[in-house]
Order: sequence, then structure tokens, then C-alpha cells
Amino acid sequence: MEIVVVGGGATGLKAAARIRRLDDEAVITVIESGKYPSVSKCGLPYYVGGMLQEPKNLLETTYGAVRDVNYFKKVKNIDVLVETKAVDIRRSERSVKIITKGGKEDELNYDYLILATGSKPVKPRIDGIDEDIEGIVHLHNIEDAEKIFDIWEEDAEDAVIIGAGLIGVECAEALHNLDMNVTIVEIMEHVLPSLLDEDIACMVESHLRGKGITVMTSSKVDKILNDGEKVTGVIINGKELKADIVVVAAGVKPNVELAKRAGIEIGKTGAIKVNEKMQTSDKRIYAGGDCVECKHILTGDAVYTPMGSVANKHGRIIANNICGIESTFPGVLGTVIFQVFGLSVGRTGLCEKDVRGAVVGRVAGADRFHFHPKHKPIRIKLIADSSGKLVGCQAAGMGVIDKRIDVAVSAITMGANVSELSNFDLAYAPPFSTAIDLILSSANMIKNKLDRLVDCISAVEFAKMLKSDDKFTVIDVRTEKEFKARKLPDERIRNIPLSELRERVNEVPDEVFLICQVGARSYEAARFLLQKGRKVRLVDGGYAFLQPVLEKYGIEFEG
Amino acid sequence: MEIVVVGGGATGLKAAARIRRLDDEAVITVIESGKYPSVSKCGLPYYVGGMLQEPKNLLETTYGAVRDVNYFKKVKNIDVLVETKAVDIRRSERSVKIITKGGKEDELNYDYLILATGSKPVKPRIDGIDEDIEGIVHLHNIEDAEKIFDIWEEDAEDAVIIGAGLIGVECAEALHNLDMNVTIVEIMEHVLPSLLDEDIACMVESHLRGKGITVMTSSKVDKILNDGEKVTGVIINGKELKADIVVVAAGVKPNVELAKRAGIEIGKTGAIKVNEKMQTSDKRIYAGGDCVECKHILTGDAVYTPMGSVANKHGRIIANNICGIESTFPGVLGTVIFQVFGLSVGRTGLCEKDVRGAVVGRVAGADRFHFHPKHKPIRIKLIADSSGKLVGCQAAGMGVIDKRIDVAVSAITMGANVSELSNFDLAYAPPFSTAIDLILSSANMIKNKLDRLVDCISAVEFAKMLKSDDKFTVIDVRTEKEFKARKLPDERIRNIPLSELRERVNEVPDEVFLICQVGARSYEAARFLLQKGRKVRLVDGGYAFLQPVLEKYGIEFEG
Repeated sequence: MEIVVVGGGATGLKAAARIRRLDDEAVITVIESGKYPSVSKCGLPYYVGGMLQEPKNLLETTYGAVRDVNYFKKVKNIDVLVETKAVDIRRSERSVKIITKGGKEDELNYDYLILATGSKPVKPRIDGIDEDIEGIVHLHNIEDAEKIFDIWEEDAEDAVIIGAGLIGVECAEALHNLDMNVTIVEIMEHVLPSLLDEDIACMVESHLRGKGITVMTSSKVDKILNDGEKVTGVIINGKELKADIVVVAAGVKPNVELAKRAGIEIGKTGAIKVNEKMQTSDKRIYAGGDCVECKHILTGDAVYTPMGSVANKHGRIIANNICGIESTFPGVLGTVIFQVFGLSVGRTGLCEKDVRGAVVGRVAGADRFHFHPKHKPIRIKLIADSSGKLVGCQAAGMGVIDKRIDVAVSAITMGANVSELSNFDLAYAPPFSTAIDLILSSANMIKNKLDRLVDCISAVEFAKMLKSDDKFTVIDVRTEKEFKARKLPDERIRNIPLSELRERVNEVPDEVFLICQVGARSYEAARFLLQKGRKVRLVDGGYAFLQPVLEKYGIEFEG
Repeated sequence: MEIVVVGGGATGLKAAARIRRLDDEAVITVIESGKYPSVSKCGLPYYVGGMLQEPKNLLETTYGAVRDVNYFKKVKNIDVLVETKAVDIRRSERSVKIITKGGKEDELNYDYLILATGSKPVKPRIDGIDEDIEGIVHLHNIEDAEKIFDIWEEDAEDAVIIGAGLIGVECAEALHNLDMNVTIVEIMEHVLPSLLDEDIACMVESHLRGKGITVMTSSKVDKILNDGEKVTGVIINGKELKADIVVVAAGVKPNVELAKRAGIEIGKTGAIKVNEKMQTSDKRIYAGGDCVECKHILTGDAVYTPMGSVANKHGRIIANNICGIESTFPGVLGTVIFQVFGLSVGRTGLCEKDVRGAVVGRVAGADRFHFHPKHKPIRIKLIADSSGKLVGCQAAGMGVIDKRIDVAVSAITMGANVSELSNFDLAYAPPFSTAIDLILSSANMIKNKLDRLVDCISAVEFAKMLKSDDKFTVIDVRTEKEFKARKLPDERIRNIPLSELRERVNEVPDEVFLICQVGARSYEAARFLLQKGRKVRLVDGGYAFLQPVLEKYGIEFEG
């Protein structure tokens, strides 16, 4: 059996290695256009930012072997042709035309072809972006990373990042760690617009600003300026900003030219269309990783969500199917996680904004027992549809959020509703969680809303109300000490601590908003006041959710 | 509506607080025999060991309020009667007879009664255990913890812990942190016998020994010795051992006397029997927490698995049902987690030893990208039934295991099989996991076994073979450097590095065992050799699983 793999990244090499394990007789050739096989692209921003050990060895296995061409030949009997391009697929003859390093043409026959051609950076239409000058970088491969180091060594001081998506935001920390002044520019209203709802995105923006990053949203880079040799600045919203380096992080798009030319079906996302077995429209040709579109588990829609973890799964499934072990890929939830300046941020499934009638549980608190010395705050937003079925989760915090996201991923994948999740027998001990883990609390909060026990207003809606001149009363039920230490200069907000609410209930008007630090006390107050005939809405998630939104809306605390 | 709650722990206070939120008119009285309401018992060993901040304030809320009698009255309008005993339930009259602090008898009427009487320590039959002398402690409440501090202040040097269950093991670290010489004695063959399989238990034993704890398994304390005032030692397996303190940690049993006297049905586990709504055999009487038995989600059997996290869930469900929000408790998986000397250990579902035809995936590796500076090793054992349905998971490591256990809990609860789990779209970025998280690798390993791609031998079986004089050949496929640095003095084990295996295949006999560090290279070697006609079995999980087992079996590495 002859196997040709185009692309020596995660999918291609995973498929090749597993085919070898399943069939020692197969002839396997991997075509890779770059210098190296199997570079972990997900590690690149962390590499640039000095956040990895021995960063020169991104190619190393866990036991210290370097995964180069010799390694693949000797250990796995796989031929990896680097600096080689696949230029044409002749489907009727089952062959691929290649051009090797020295420019030599050759032809490889296949029984099965695997397209793992990956992705490439999107180049937004910006005046000056195409000019061949120093200082414009797309952080997409290890060579780009080296380019950033070169510019840095020339004492680059000011960096502009175009696009506040995943790579853009991770890159902000990396460049900051190289002692640059960093400005990140996003055309949409908030950072990570395709991944996060506004409330969670505000947490990221607040954190970036707190670390000295300039965050410009609803802003467009009109032009990249240069002196004929190097970048000198950019024009943003009509104003000039000095820049020694411009990192273009406007997302990626699938590399599909080879597939397209061969007449293989491309999906509506622009990526290669595959069936559950990862076969393209030509059953002899499989595709996976960043060049294909995936089915969204919840909507059934084709989506383009390139991720290294998905690419690895694809490789395994392709190998299985080629070698006679039937395997199907069920789809993705668009799970994403990252860490920036110590803040962990994650998401999976659908955003609140994308779900009609969404019911949301917002909770904040410690990631473990609050007397454990390592406890740190986290905020979780769990999203259900109007029937209580789980559809999404977003979280951010200095504490552990990946565990909560992964529990949500597991629950959503298996079709759980909030009642089921709220009774998951999750692992509890003081060093790991609270007795009722916050992900379970967030499910309980949704249940309370579905049971109509409480009515909420989101931090974003509430911030807009605070910006207005509307008349209303807010009761802040934190302790007097907490209230005095950190209060908003707004006469509409009054303090009645929860502990005094029962005796001061007559001070509460007929209609009120309630707020506290994380939402628990205001919920308790709300239940009491509702039963005392008041119309009550509580600010969902308390100040923990409101504060970053207020910052974005330009509302400042006193003191 | 009059509600009486017997027991001011997690279930009782949770139920009381939620009933208050659902019904502000209800009259709620909580009877607590101890001095304090709502002590977090799960925190006690950590408290004793100085592993919590401000340990005097285990009663504090997250915002600094002390949850004492006044707090419950003022904030929640709940009467908590401390140092008060419920002595009799008169079901026909719906009343509870109590004896208050001063010895006064009283009677409380109820519409609904909640039994949250908790558990008490099991007292094993040991000569001398009943004598009223200083130095014998059951770590069950905050007073016991204070007792340990008192003994410690008298310069206690030697501690013996009877029972290597959860509390016993956690306690070993706590007492070690108080500078005592600690011996932990377990009657069964390995520590945590009801929670872990032998291979994972060996990891705990190895770690405890490495920290200077003496671990005695298959050992019985025959007698506790004293000088008339204080403990002086114990007799174990016929030999005397000095001891200034003996902590009895032989597990807990439910407090059911009150329920039993009232004719409420007790289950076969000895705990109160409840239905899905947490109702006892008397529909007006609910029960939850450590005094009830739960349904095991997988087997449907009644099990007794007291846990603070479960107790909280029970409280919520009881309150809901009493207040007209129908809620059911689906059962437990017996999830447990703990940390001892930095080693995290967790389990959920069934053990391998309890599942006929179990198929097990053992994997070891880094908890995150292996170039991330915080990566640490973990070991996971995932257990499926012969159809591939997930039934259990155990894990241990210095790295993050709680996340993997919680993913397993979620998957098992929702009835997932290994194929489903292996495609979960879990969150991946270098600071959080590897591109294929180890929990997914463990599922893939089970799939490989179900697909008959490989045949394995467990570390325990293999250790027994090494102990024997049987003739066989083991090929260690680690690098020569790894092999020389850490090898077993056994002629039957030969080194052929994976990278040389293809060229040295003729050196491999017809039948071999394969081993490497974590199992990945030996799996690759196994697939190659199988296709070269060899009969191959690999040591499941590699040295990462074998080493702690070897230690237990008295087999030592060279050098």
C-alpha cells in the first residue's frame, strides 16, 4: 500500500505514524514544504515570549529525540521530504506531482492520499501591508518567530498587533516580555470577537490594560508606514502611531489551492469538505487538520475552527480508516483556551449572543477551598438553551479554569442538561475545588432561572443603565466595609448589608436592582425581597462580572 | 411550614438555607450536638497539617462573616440550637424530642423533618482502644483536631495511624508536618484498599515512604499500650512500637440511632435508605449526607460513600422537594480525591478488580506541553467494560489529575464509551495540556486493546514474574542512556533502543515482553514486532507504573 501525505504537521505525521503502526508494509511518504516536520504551532507565541524551556527544541520528543527527517526514517520507516512542494494531484492516475528542494520534478503514486496542508495567515487589506519591508510579521511558523527575535535584537521598542484573536492576544504578552510597548488593534467591538461574549472579553481587555498593553477596539489600521526599508508606524483611526514591528494576527485560512485545483469539493467555509471518516469528495483522498472544515456538534453546521488538538484526532481517524479500522469524527465544539499574563481564558460551544432564548449562569468565586493557600478567583459563564440543555461555557480567572471548561465540554458533548450537570459527582477536596464546584453552581444558577426564582440583568446591560440618566435604585448588599472600600460614585446605589436587610426591609423601594461581589448574597437578598413583594433584578455575577465591563464603558470606582 | 433539621453540617445547613430562600415564611430550626454549626470536615487533616490559611476560621464565609448561631439567625432567620441533642422522633405526632445544652427537655413540631446526622468514626476492635487515656484520637471534628494540637504541644514524637484510608493517609502528612515520626498501619494488602487498585495504591505507598512515612500493610495493631495516663506504644504484628499518639482512622459509619429508634428503614449498608427525592421510608422525613446510602450510578447498588460534596447536593435536593420544586438525586460514582505531600490522587467509578473483563488504558506523561516550565508527570488508569463503556478512572501524579478525573466523571455519568471520550474537544494550549490530553490517550489505549492491536501485562503481574525464576526475555526499548542510568539487575532484561529495533530485529526472540518509560515506545515496538511474527506483550504503562510496584515487591534498581 502506497500512502502519500501532503503536509508534515500534526495531522500528516500523526496519520503517517499510526499507519506505520497498523501496517508495517505500507510505503509512506510525507511531503513538507517547510524546513522542519512537526512543529508545534500552538507553542509559537509562548516560544516568542520566553515562556517555554529550551525553546530551540520545539521538535524534541518527551525523551529527547529530535523529530527530524532521520528520526522518521530510522524509527518509523517514513520518508519525510522537506522543502518539497506538492504541486498537482492527478486523481485519475492516483499520483502527486512534487518539486523537491533543488527544483527537481517528481511523481509519487498513491493508493491513498492524505491532504494535511494546514492553514496560512489571513492578510487583511491594509495599505502598505504587501510591501517587502522589514518589520511586518505573521506569526505562523518557526521562521516567523525567528524574524521577531531578529527585529527585537535591533532594539525594537514599539509593537502593533493587528487583530485581537487568539494569536494576537497571546502575542501581546510575548512582545511585552521582549520589553516592547504593545498596542493591539481590533476592528470589532471587543477582543476575541468570534470566541467570547462581551462580558468575558471585557475581563481579557481589563487584564491586558492592567499589564500595560494598549487595547484599541472598534479600531482599524488604515496604513502601515515605512521608510523604504523598515516599518516606522501605522495609521489607526486616522492617527499615526510609531511602530518598529507590526504583527499581523488577523486569523488563518485553510490552504486549499492544491485540493481545489484537483477538483476536490470545498465547503462553504472555504475549507475542504470531508465526511465523518475524513474522506474528501474523492474516496481515495483523505484530509484533516487546519485545511478541513468540521461539523459543529451542537448546530450540525460546517465550521472552520483550526486547532492542534483536533488535527491530532483527525490524523488518528484517517489512519484507522485507511487501515481498515472504521472510525468516525463526531465534530467539534470550538473549544479554545489560552493564558495571557497569568489570566486563563477558555470557551466552548456556543456564545450567549448566538443562542436565542439562552439562559445563563454567571458565577464567581475561589477555584478551591477558600482557606487553601493556593486558591485564586475564577469567573464562569455557563450557557443553556431555554430547555436547560447545555450549549456553551466561557470562563476567565487567575485560578484554574481549564478543568471547568473540560467538564462543560464533556457534558455538552454527551447532551447533558443543567440538572444532570449539577449532580455530577466531581472530585472534591480542599486543594482542588470547593464542596460545590463553581461549574456546578453555575448549573444551579441556570436551574434557579429556569424555575423563575430570580430575574437578572447582565453586567453589560447594567453598565449601559449606569451610563444613562435613568432613575432607579440599586442596593449593594455587601458589608459596609466592602462598600466603603470600593464604591461607584453613583447616588442611585445604596448600601444595605445582607445582614441588616431583614431589619431594614422598609428602606427598600418597590422596585430595585441588587448587587454584591459575586452574586450569592444578592441572590439571597433577592429571594427575600421578592417574597416581601418587591420587584427585584440582580446584577448577574456581581462586581466580579461588572467591574471589567465598567472599565470598558469608562465608569470608574471611587478611591 | 415548620421544618426541623437534625444536624448542623453540610446537608442540614444547606437544606435549611435553601428552604429559607424558597420560603421566607417557613419556621426552620436546626439541632446541632456540637459546639459549632457547619464545620468543613473535609478540611480537618489539612487544618491539622498547617496547610490552610488562618486555620482558626474554618467557619468563615468567603467574605469574612463567621457562620455562627447569630449569623444564621440574623442573615437567614434560621434558629440553630448548638450543643443540643435530638433524642427521639415521635412520627405519629410529627415531633422531635430534644435535650438542650443545660439538660432541658423540649419538643419541636415539624411538617418536615430532615435527618442530617452525619457519621462517626469506626472503632476497630483493638485491645486498649477503649481506655480513657490521653493520646488516642479519632480525627472527626474540630475538637479532635484541637486534641492533636494539645498532644503535639507536649512534644509528641511518634505517631501511629491505624487505617490507611482517606483520612489516615491525609493525616500522615499532617502529623509529619508537626515533626512527628509517622507510621501508618493498614490491615489490607495495600493502602486505600476500598478506593484504589493495587498499582495506583503502590504509587501512594512509594510516595509516602519517600517522604519518610513508615507504611505497614497487611499489618494489624493488636494492642494500644499506655502507662495509665497516656499512650506509650502499640503492638503491631506482635512487635512493640513506641507511640505518643495513636490516630484511629478506620473509616466512618453513619449515625443512624435516632432514625433506627423511630422505625425508619435502614438500608443494607447500615445507612438510612432514601428514595431519589431523598425521602426516607416516612415521606415527611428526609435524610441526606453522611447518614444515608446512595445509589451507585453504574451498578445501581446501594453504597455508603460519605463525601462533603454529595452532602451539599443532598441538602439542595431536600429543600427543593420540601418546597415544591421536584428534584431527584441520580446517585454517586464514589469519586474521591486527595493530596499528600504534593502527590495528587483521585478515583471515580469502579476499580479494575471489581469489573469482570475490564479493559484498562494505562498512560503516563506530562500534564501539559513538555516544554512548558510547569509541566509535571501524571499517571492515569482508565477502566472500561468489555464493550468499551467507561466504568472507572484512577490517577496519581505531581501534576494536575483532578481535571482528568472530572472529565472521566462527566463521561462515565453520561454513559460515554471510549470512542466518544477519545474525541472530546477538550481545551488545549501548552500551559494546560498536551495536544492529545492523557485522558484521551488512555481512551485510545483501551480502543487499541479492544481492537486487539496489542496485548499487555500489568505492572503487578510483571513484578510477580520478575520475582520468579521463570525464563523469559524482556526488551527495554528506551535509549541506551536511559537504560544505563536506571536498570534492573535482571539478566532477562535486554536493551534494544526503539531507534535500533528495525535494524536489530533479528536479535529479538520469538516471544518477548517489551517495556519503556511510559508505554508509548514499547507500544510502537510491539506493533512492529507483531508484524514481524513475534509474540509480544508489553508492560502496561511502562516503568512509570512498574517502579512503585517493584518497590512494594522489594525489587530494586541498580545505581
